[in-house]
Amino acid sequence: MAHDIRILTEAELRQAVGLDLTLIDVIEKAFAALASGTVVMPPILSMELKQAHGEVDVKTAYIPGFDGFAIKVSPGFFDNPKLGLPSLNGLMILFSAKTGLVQAVFLDNGYLTDLRTAAAGAVAARHLAPKTVATAGVIGTGVQARLQMQAAHLVRPFRAVLVHGRDMEKARACAEDLAASLGIAAEAVVDPAELTARSQLVVTTTPARSPVLRAEWLHPGLHITAMGSDQAGKNEIEPAALAAADLYVCDRVSQCETLGELRAAIESGAWTTGTPPELGAVIAGAAAGRQREEDITICDLTGTGAQDTAIATHVLTMLGAAGTLIRA
Amino acid sequence: MAHDIRILTEAELRQAVGLDLTLIDVIEKAFAALASGTVVMPPILSMELKQAHGEVDVKTAYIPGFDGFAIKVSPGFFDNPKLGLPSLNGLMILFSAKTGLVQAVFLDNGYLTDLRTAAAGAVAARHLAPKTVATAGVIGTGVQARLQMQAAHLVRPFRAVLVHGRDMEKARACAEDLAASLGIAAEAVVDPAELTARSQLVVTTTPARSPVLRAEWLHPGLHITAMGSDQAGKNEIEPAALAAADLYVCDRVSQCETLGELRAAIESGAWTTGTPPELGAVIAGAAAGRQREEDITICDLTGTGAQDTAIATHVLTMLGAAGTLIRA
Repeated sequence: MAHDIRILTEAELRQAVGLDLTLIDVIEKAFAALASGTVVMPPILSMELKQAHGEVDVKTAYIPGFDGFAIKVSPGFFDNPKLGLPSLNGLMILFSAKTGLVQAVFLDNGYLTDLRTAAAGAVAARHLAPKTVATAGVIGTGVQARLQMQAAHLVRPFRAVLVHGRDMEKARACAEDLAASLGIAAEAVVDPAELTARSQLVVTTTPARSPVLRAEWLHPGLHITAMGSDQAGKNEIEPAALAAADLYVCDRVSQCETLGELRAAIESGAWTTGTPPELGAVIAGAAAGRQREEDITICDLTGTGAQDTAIATHVLTMLGAAGTLIRA
Repeated sequence: MAHDIRILTEAELRQAVGLDLTLIDVIEKAFAALASGTVVMPPILSMELKQAHGEVDVKTAYIPGFDGFAIKVSPGFFDNPKLGLPSLNGLMILFSAKTGLVQAVFLDNGYLTDLRTAAAGAVAARHLAPKTVATAGVIGTGVQARLQMQAAHLVRPFRAVLVHGRDMEKARACAEDLAASLGIAAEAVVDPAELTARSQLVVTTTPARSPVLRAEWLHPGLHITAMGSDQAGKNEIEPAALAAADLYVCDRVSQCETLGELRAAIESGAWTTGTPPELGAVIAGAAAGRQREEDITICDLTGTGAQDTAIATHVLTMLGAAGTLIRA
């Protein structure tokens, strides 16, 4: 019983879909569904390949009401740069939620993951950042540093952006890119404490294994989104900050406990206040979000299969006739 | 950094690879590697979709020395037959074991899974069945009933085959197919006790949730391979049979404990003799196999990601120029 399967390349996907408010709404809807309790989202399948200096993660989620569900494979092979290849790659497969038949294969090399991760940052900013953000800061200088600021700017149109990285040359390049893409003032900042002090919204986008943002830097009216930690052992935010904030929110508690900032906070003993709310519950109104402009809020994003299913089903509606049909 | 990815359809894969001794050797090598302890094989990612009357399993394994590793997605949507579609579908993706880059996408609709599952049955028969098998029996009448007998016949060239199923019409059709494909006598048998009594090798290929093969039917010189149970709740062999056999072997103990015959045997209290050996250890000589022709042996196959990686890397060498190259 052969059927048509659509194969899309990264180039075709880049033509079809980008970072915009429509995508942010799609990802927000996925988080709201997560909070409803009807989503089926198994734990991440994770495989560490020490011999190859690599790792592979597989994520998926079934969201009732969505036409399809995605299975996303993200390999990271950290010796690739020596071969002139990127460390991160991968693909997404979209299945019919009704029949389980393969509908599309997105050979995106991680592009859709980049987009849905940035969109989640915007969803967090929309629901947790102060209403007025004059200045946003980003710690980290890679693809996500750029995309997170672009996504956040769509929901909080800040007038200035600050960039900090261990490598100031990369921080300057990132600031230049953001100045060009957002058309606002952008500045590379040597001291992350200064960056935090001058910002109302800070996003951390690093693979740090010891904190890059200190609890003593928290100030009234600050929102922080930490999206770098996606593995046990990673940690961007000093554990005391989670306890000191007025509100700490997880994308998924079960993941943040093992892979996110919450892990380090629990292990260090800093987190003693039980189960934090999830972003989806805040979106759905089932949990309280920011109460006052001067509150300090933190959102911990580890990345969910629900986001993958949301972007994959969304992309399918944006493709027109793009791609190659294979009858299989 | 675009690279070529090869896309293969089920039809192209059926042209390129079939059930033969070469494939059985490849699958045997994967089991031997599993026993060596160097294979990285995470637990199966399993998602039950009650709303859609479906389930999805994802399997993978990294085998040192193999050029690639597979990730295999197996959806089962059990209302599909009402739509004229098969319940089982899916695909395999082959990644470079060195870089993690996607090398090939096998849109096989489960064909490669069928092959590697049958090949595992042959590996079990090769190492555990009596040297002489005059008659083989199969309980079940589907695709695996046919393939398991074809695979077993390659390693134990029996002269007659018996088929039992709840639906005698299907059993007769299966027997006719096997008579034609193997060129031997084939007979549909109403009573599974009679089938077992007359056979030296019995394979069970059902989705049964209560035993289809009774302990009291065991007889000297019998080998049983149970390959139907791949989920908690399934059970083909009466638990007492596992304890009564001279040797009970798992494909993977950690899987059989939760998904295979061993689960029911442990839950019923019938299994009290500790950790059974794995098929790979028998192949490698690290665990004892059949000692005497009159021994009674049972092998429990739940299906491993190692088999998927083995067949996927094997297929890649068999393809010639088949398939569609997509630069992504």
